[in-house]
Amino acid sequence: MGCNKEEAELCTDLFLSAEVRGIPSHGIIRIRDYYKLWKDKRINSNPNMRIVHETPSTAVVDGDNAIGMIAASYSMKLAIEKARQCGTGWVSTRASNHYGIAGYYAMMALEHDMIGISMTNANPLVAPLFSLSKMLGTNPIAVAIPAGKYPPFVADFATTPVAHGKLTVAAKRGDDIPFGLLQDMDGKPSNDPSIIGRGGSMLALGGDYEHGSHKGFCLSAIVDIFSAVLSGANFGPFVPPFVSNLKPNDKSVGEGTGHFFGAMRIDAFQPASEFKAKMDEWIETFKNSSPTPGTEGVLIPGEPERLKEAKIRKDGISLIPAVAVEIKGIADELGIKFEVI
Amino acid sequence: MGCNKEEAELCTDLFLSAEVRGIPSHGIIRIRDYYKLWKDKRINSNPNMRIVHETPSTAVVDGDNAIGMIAASYSMKLAIEKARQCGTGWVSTRASNHYGIAGYYAMMALEHDMIGISMTNANPLVAPLFSLSKMLGTNPIAVAIPAGKYPPFVADFATTPVAHGKLTVAAKRGDDIPFGLLQDMDGKPSNDPSIIGRGGSMLALGGDYEHGSHKGFCLSAIVDIFSAVLSGANFGPFVPPFVSNLKPNDKSVGEGTGHFFGAMRIDAFQPASEFKAKMDEWIETFKNSSPTPGTEGVLIPGEPERLKEAKIRKDGISLIPAVAVEIKGIADELGIKFEVI
Repeated sequence: MGCNKEEAELCTDLFLSAEVRGIPSHGIIRIRDYYKLWKDKRINSNPNMRIVHETPSTAVVDGDNAIGMIAASYSMKLAIEKARQCGTGWVSTRASNHYGIAGYYAMMALEHDMIGISMTNANPLVAPLFSLSKMLGTNPIAVAIPAGKYPPFVADFATTPVAHGKLTVAAKRGDDIPFGLLQDMDGKPSNDPSIIGRGGSMLALGGDYEHGSHKGFCLSAIVDIFSAVLSGANFGPFVPPFVSNLKPNDKSVGEGTGHFFGAMRIDAFQPASEFKAKMDEWIETFKNSSPTPGTEGVLIPGEPERLKEAKIRKDGISLIPAVAVEIKGIADELGIKFEVI
Repeated sequence: MGCNKEEAELCTDLFLSAEVRGIPSHGIIRIRDYYKLWKDKRINSNPNMRIVHETPSTAVVDGDNAIGMIAASYSMKLAIEKARQCGTGWVSTRASNHYGIAGYYAMMALEHDMIGISMTNANPLVAPLFSLSKMLGTNPIAVAIPAGKYPPFVADFATTPVAHGKLTVAAKRGDDIPFGLLQDMDGKPSNDPSIIGRGGSMLALGGDYEHGSHKGFCLSAIVDIFSAVLSGANFGPFVPPFVSNLKPNDKSVGEGTGHFFGAMRIDAFQPASEFKAKMDEWIETFKNSSPTPGTEGVLIPGEPERLKEAKIRKDGISLIPAVAVEIKGIADELGIKFEVI
């Protein structure tokens, strides 16, 4: 597609990281969308990314409409470099696109003994409390925190009760879903996952007012403002779709999709070794709390993905046959040798 | 109580700010607890607060067991000063106490054309997903963002579906509450607000797994780690209680309660005037989305508190007679003239 080798390897690593962490909705299945967006000239595989504004601890990056993974990786590296210089680094990125799994960039900080933060806005699917309109994306937040003898704490979650991918799967199967995740076109609670295609919306984390969906709205709004208003990207309902079959909003209020990244050097607060020992104590404390009957007890953020990864690294990635055929088609178009086993 | 004039005025402003913003659970009713903790020598009204570690954009503050409001205000001012110097400032504070409303400190950044962030851990009431134990506090997050012609965006929310104060009120009235907020001592869903006193726990934002309570747990855990592990305060179940009738945990893993503060200079990302105009556009976009039937539509974070404030500034603060009597008693003990009208 015109990426240089390093960038192509980066994207490959991102797609495979999603697969091995058990988030196939952000894995190989997305290659087709990226490819089609590139064919439609809606993403730029040879971008001139640049820093448009900066201070010792901050920067705004213009991704020049790059593949989101490339603009995001560039931006997170910059945040890490700034943290090295003055304790913390914070980068807001515009003119980018879908960036894959949020946790990947947050985790880039770990090997530097830093806390990593990553968030992105996304095309609108979510109605704020008291609204009928899709105004926000599933706007994920990821925070990665190093530990000592235990694996790191890695929170990586959409600011909606469930990921959009789970609704798509339920809709395809014809399954009902619990109330509290969706509303219909009149704002009434719905348990039909296909309602989104008929004027319905996802709800923010919390679900309804009594269960705190105004708080989920706050979170999602903060992600949107940090990612897009600080950088000059499209915010809220104007964020371009990341699938090729949806057309962008007629109105644009900025450039592309926005992200926000942070890196905080642990030793900007205390010696890293002491902090990591304390994190081990934190993890042990939570793991040792009494489990609810029938469960294994508290899962430390990052643990579910690691459990999946252990299994997937043993069993391999399962590729849906239709996706394999799609990729074979793309490979043929691009003159790349690809064998479906 | 031995505070200097400036600190006494600061605490007064904090208590009154909670009252006028319609959060009386953090207002005048708390004076008694602060007073009794001071009488029990559990808080220090003449602290030697100090910076124990710093870089250009970060610091750790030791509050020397100050009233939380005093340590928090000192820490947030430091974050603002650091942001002035290098774009952003981040302060983690230990050896502090209950700090009142989180939003107050975040809002301190606004007059400097900065985004303000404030969070704190708190004594344990919340069970993580799959746990029977109270491991985390209601751990609030506040983010204040300046706008132009509109009032600022001020999100200020506990990372639980409802505030603890609302449960206390419902329990006193004998009202049931919705399912999804509490569990009993066996981890079963409960709608009885008094269950917390009988081995039950609050649930994290999301309520149950199907509705994303693992995400609420992630948020609350991040607040706990940023506030306490980064600073060296007590984390999770070891956070000391902020009411005088509860004894501290026998085990201590750090010093006092922890907070975390951030300030980001808007013009570290883009000219403040452009950002504020964009925030106005963001606010208009969300206010103009279609309301659900029977509602006034989207409430911008901070708007509910402002609506309450307008009414309370007109009607006055309503003080529960028993609280007025309590304060009169304290005033008498301290030789302060106080008249209950």
